[in-house]
Amino acid sequence: MVTHDRIRLTGLLRKKPRESGASPSRFGRVRVEVDPALVERYVLELAHHGAYGDTGVWRTAYSPEWVAAQEQVGAWLGAAGLDVRWDAVGNVWGRLAGGETGPVVATGSHVDSQTPGGRYDGALGVIAAIVALRSLREQFGQPRRTLEAVSLCEEEASRFHATNFWGSRAIAGEIGPDEPERIEDFDGTTIAEAMRAVGLDPARIPEVRRSDLDTWIELHIEQGPVLEEEGLPVGIVDAITSIRHYVVELVGRSDHAGARPMRGRLDPLAGFAEIVAAVIGVALESGPPAVTTVGRVHVEPNLPSAVPDKVTFTLDSRHPDQRAVEAQHAEQERLMSEIAERRGLRISWTKPLDLPACPCDAGVVAALERSAREQAIMYRRMHSGAGHDTQNIAKIAKVAMVFARSKDGRSHTPAELTSVEDAVAAIRVLAGALHELAY
Amino acid sequence: MVTHDRIRLTGLLRKKPRESGASPSRFGRVRVEVDPALVERYVLELAHHGAYGDTGVWRTAYSPEWVAAQEQVGAWLGAAGLDVRWDAVGNVWGRLAGGETGPVVATGSHVDSQTPGGRYDGALGVIAAIVALRSLREQFGQPRRTLEAVSLCEEEASRFHATNFWGSRAIAGEIGPDEPERIEDFDGTTIAEAMRAVGLDPARIPEVRRSDLDTWIELHIEQGPVLEEEGLPVGIVDAITSIRHYVVELVGRSDHAGARPMRGRLDPLAGFAEIVAAVIGVALESGPPAVTTVGRVHVEPNLPSAVPDKVTFTLDSRHPDQRAVEAQHAEQERLMSEIAERRGLRISWTKPLDLPACPCDAGVVAALERSAREQAIMYRRMHSGAGHDTQNIAKIAKVAMVFARSKDGRSHTPAELTSVEDAVAAIRVLAGALHELAY
Repeated sequence: MVTHDRIRLTGLLRKKPRESGASPSRFGRVRVEVDPALVERYVLELAHHGAYGDTGVWRTAYSPEWVAAQEQVGAWLGAAGLDVRWDAVGNVWGRLAGGETGPVVATGSHVDSQTPGGRYDGALGVIAAIVALRSLREQFGQPRRTLEAVSLCEEEASRFHATNFWGSRAIAGEIGPDEPERIEDFDGTTIAEAMRAVGLDPARIPEVRRSDLDTWIELHIEQGPVLEEEGLPVGIVDAITSIRHYVVELVGRSDHAGARPMRGRLDPLAGFAEIVAAVIGVALESGPPAVTTVGRVHVEPNLPSAVPDKVTFTLDSRHPDQRAVEAQHAEQERLMSEIAERRGLRISWTKPLDLPACPCDAGVVAALERSAREQAIMYRRMHSGAGHDTQNIAKIAKVAMVFARSKDGRSHTPAELTSVEDAVAAIRVLAGALHELAY
Repeated sequence: MVTHDRIRLTGLLRKKPRESGASPSRFGRVRVEVDPALVERYVLELAHHGAYGDTGVWRTAYSPEWVAAQEQVGAWLGAAGLDVRWDAVGNVWGRLAGGETGPVVATGSHVDSQTPGGRYDGALGVIAAIVALRSLREQFGQPRRTLEAVSLCEEEASRFHATNFWGSRAIAGEIGPDEPERIEDFDGTTIAEAMRAVGLDPARIPEVRRSDLDTWIELHIEQGPVLEEEGLPVGIVDAITSIRHYVVELVGRSDHAGARPMRGRLDPLAGFAEIVAAVIGVALESGPPAVTTVGRVHVEPNLPSAVPDKVTFTLDSRHPDQRAVEAQHAEQERLMSEIAERRGLRISWTKPLDLPACPCDAGVVAALERSAREQAIMYRRMHSGAGHDTQNIAKIAKVAMVFARSKDGRSHTPAELTSVEDAVAAIRVLAGALHELAY
């Protein structure tokens, strides 16, 4: 429901030719008008594809719902006056050619969802890209530099467990040649088969790589409570957290819960409990922005009357500062080993996910901050505690992100909600920065 | 493999007529000879029925393997010179009628197994009952009081989760009229259907009830390491532990593992870790024989990158002294509630299993001790940390148990092992006591 008045275009462009080689300079206040009704309609219509319950979305990569959503995005990009193309992994691009040749300024996010997810995670950034470029073209005409909007094919790893960032990794040229035939979904379909089933040729993935991106900005819902707690509609992201996942195996000896006295037990669950307290304690003692989560636990044999044999669990440990997170990991590993050894348990771990911290580009962050200030949109700088496609594109372009406030900090659930007002505010910050960078 | 010589019958019965109404009195040393080769052969042959791998057994109640095992038991009981009958739940009885009328002295254990279990849990007590009565009959002829050996149908709850002690509860008249049609196995077959499929009529369960049992002794493997650690072949059980199972539900709020700062989380897994340490701590502080085990854990949504919503876990809390265990339960409940409340988590629990402590009959325990001493078999008195059919039969008879040493304290696994020597020693203690009570 749109509850506020349309935002009026009050500032008109008064711009001098830009000096070659200089950083983007500003010669006046720019306001970009964004139509709340359009944003709301796009959110609701995109959510039809893979609708789940009243407010959820279940749209995994290369599913029929996903195809329909990407076709919808393509139609909207076309209606915005952009040149539309699908690349070889199924990213859908819309291009607003600039008057000058040279590298591209791009924006977008992903179209796939969790199972189920909500209407906003990824989707809002895709809609923001379409609406921002449409608004800029309508209000300011042809840009100097080429602008592109993109709906990335896969980020959530909700179908192919090991493949998140499939779209952005393809753009960065980071997909290994064996990955398409090696990676399977939960039903045993390889990602190559899934691509071919929707008319995409996995042999052409290398063609997706872009070497002409200068700047990338992704708009995304916050997925946490920080903006809501501080009463702000928008966040400007200056770093994306590192993420490391440990899968830890703690092995003891199963015993009868009654016949084996406490003394002499090798109880991996008792050890697990101590480890959970210890590794969470490391994040608590370090203080914000350190976070640590034990989210998944598997106990064997998992019987009420048996001391377990083995506890396997995940440890998710994050910090947006790379040096800080390295100390955090070292301390957590030290504590896990020490506790296991003291208790006579065998411990081992793998690190199936290990993404370094990704600092954003100071210039792009500054452009977003100017856009927010000049359009009188309240914001704060913050880090992203979640991983994003932007981390991959950071390998080939200058990047930053814009966050829109999430109601109750919810994400990865049908309960996700970002108000139309907050979405519009975030899109205006995005569009203002794109204007500065491309016009 | 039988590695020791046959134990010779060296003490002959020199017995005077027993005075009416007096407790059993002894007029000379009795040694009961037990054939190790027979014990070994019975162990190996019974294990053929439902053999699992090299040394395991998978023999759930009313399965074809179970039928074959009970038929085998019936054949051995007949070969021992006993009158064989199946009761309405499928317990197989062998009766050695005494010269006097009056209540019965019975012994036995259960024939079903864990999935998989080993060759000894339950089975050794069935074999002991057959061998003890066979040896007594062969060596001492007809008893004064009637002796019975029984192979109980179900104890392990390995097929019908909620029905352990089906055989002994039927004997004690403790099976509710709705249970046969209500209780289902993991495939949805009711226990009534399973009984009918093997030719048993669930409507006749009330006929299983015995009102003529005076004394019951069950021989069982220890299932723990106490006898092995103390270098003793035999334990004489003077109490069976209480067992209470809690199923505890701890509910917090799921959050993104990166986007939600530590402050403000309602993490039920962090609360679970603290609770595990606390409830185990209660047993550790109390000291032996208190034991507490958290054996089963279920985490939702159980994802690496999500703070869990809910942790459901079992708490198994035991003590052989009823007053002590009541204090133990109260303290554990207090700690669980306090931890949950402090952390803003909702907690609730059910108690799906709640067996009171079962003290054994002092007279029967004394008879077993005399038997062990007089036959020069090393033993200790001890409690049982596991539940047994004997707890149910205690409602209608004087009871006690004999334990045989378990290698490495193992049970509920194909790795269970009790040596032939230890089995023979335990059977001789059992048989000597039966002799005192019935001859």
